Amino acid sequence: MDAGERPALGILAGGGAMPGRVAGAARAAGRGVFLVGLDGFADRTVLAPYPHEFIRIGAAGRILAALRANGCGDLVLVGPVRRPSLLDLRPDAEGTRILARIGRAAFAGDDGLLAAVVRVLGEEGFRVIGAHEVLREALAPVGLLSRTAPDALAMADITRGVAVAQALGAADVGQGCVIQQGIVLAVEAAEGTDGMLARCAPLARPGPGGVLVKLVKPGQDRRADLPTIGPETVRCAAAAGLRGIAFEAGGTLLAERDATLAEADAAGLFLLGLDPTTRHREGDMT
Amino acid sequence: MDAGERPALGILAGGGAMPGRVAGAARAAGRGVFLVGLDGFADRTVLAPYPHEFIRIGAAGRILAALRANGCGDLVLVGPVRRPSLLDLRPDAEGTRILARIGRAAFAGDDGLLAAVVRVLGEEGFRVIGAHEVLREALAPVGLLSRTAPDALAMADITRGVAVAQALGAADVGQGCVIQQGIVLAVEAAEGTDGMLARCAPLARPGPGGVLVKLVKPGQDRRADLPTIGPETVRCAAAAGLRGIAFEAGGTLLAERDATLAEADAAGLFLLGLDPTTRHREGDMT
Repeated sequence: MDAGERPALGILAGGGAMPGRVAGAARAAGRGVFLVGLDGFADRTVLAPYPHEFIRIGAAGRILAALRANGCGDLVLVGPVRRPSLLDLRPDAEGTRILARIGRAAFAGDDGLLAAVVRVLGEEGFRVIGAHEVLREALAPVGLLSRTAPDALAMADITRGVAVAQALGAADVGQGCVIQQGIVLAVEAAEGTDGMLARCAPLARPGPGGVLVKLVKPGQDRRADLPTIGPETVRCAAAAGLRGIAFEAGGTLLAERDATLAEADAAGLFLLGLDPTTRHREGDMT
Repeated sequence: MDAGERPALGILAGGGAMPGRVAGAARAAGRGVFLVGLDGFADRTVLAPYPHEFIRIGAAGRILAALRANGCGDLVLVGPVRRPSLLDLRPDAEGTRILARIGRAAFAGDDGLLAAVVRVLGEEGFRVIGAHEVLREALAPVGLLSRTAPDALAMADITRGVAVAQALGAADVGQGCVIQQGIVLAVEAAEGTDGMLARCAPLARPGPGGVLVKLVKPGQDRRADLPTIGPETVRCAAAAGLRGIAFEAGGTLLAERDATLAEADAAGLFLLGLDPTTRHREGDMT
């Protein structure tokens, strides 16, 4: 790396389109990028336009070497990664050393694991930044983004959903749940948001449809794995018979903003950004 | 009703075999029984051997009249009932009056609704008792019931599951979750325990299988809707690749005890009754 050059942005890429969007935004800002696609998660067509290498998640030594060889200083972790079991991991020598440093956190909740990974990457000399620091426009704002607005019943369902998601987050489980007419239809765990939405249609009651609520977990490191809403989320919500999506403003990545809003307006769904400074009070009202 | 005769036991019957077991135990103790089968939930073959009537859940006036006409004093609520939406309910005149008395609780969590229903039935002159007061042998004891015992990894998964189930219970959601190698695979909501177990196989990681944890919710009225473990629960858990089930002793109905234990031993699953007086401490260890 030349001494005067700004270090390249390294991207540890999980699934979906977000790694490519982060790479595109960095390159548009005149910055070099290098992506490490995590084997089994990252999408080859998303990474193809950029310099990249596919490495399995357990080969931490190879990942760190590739990032260093390509002059990466800042790092973004973006795109869903199904948390591996230790048996899946097959750590290399460096991976084993890192696992030892992570210690018990590897067996605790996702937050503990992610926070530990961010800490170890910092100790290795990288600066982990949030995807939203590269993609500022992608952080969802407070307020209504769609033409359709939630009615009083939907607002009551959102309030209940916030209380449920907060309880889940405190136990470091998922970030999402679906509420219909006060009934908790579904709670998100390892299946992910789209997987949870896929089971809601047969559970739904007649009458006004439910809402999806997604929050940032209380202890969550905002540099890793923020909840993401995109066109596919809206399509899954519509297919599940929902009437809208409420999410934490400033803590949710809005992927493909125009396409997401167009999809919501076409389906008549609302998209509501909740103010994180007031949502605790709302939660108390249940 | 004759003045000297002990009032009959009324049974408000949801799904499954438990209503018949409660009726059989009461009759074996020389007591008269009358069952109200809730339309769409109660099983005709289960109710057939006993005097009964099928009534839809919204027709509260007809339900109360039938219980009174058949001399019922004590009431047991037993068997799963999918919580209806208000549109499903189509309350009759008495049902509308009762709904007004329940008020906001009808829109809060399940506990709020059940507690309100028990209160209203009390105000109507009935004494609501727990199924376990009729079926004393059906309350699961503390300790290991199966030949297979949980290993250290399974015990760690149970500890994590207790913490998750407690957080869920505090938000008045489900009573169950599945943990594998520290990862929360699934959390139970409206789909019920068997529905949750049905989605676990594809979410499971390689290596040692997970555990199902079922607890009584902290605010739960123990006279209504205790968690139940039966042979079908064990079959679903085995099909999901789980290694065992941990449940709250003294707060879990063990349906068909012999068949349940035989099923667990045949499948090599453990069944572990958690002591509710110590489980909070266990939960703190995570």
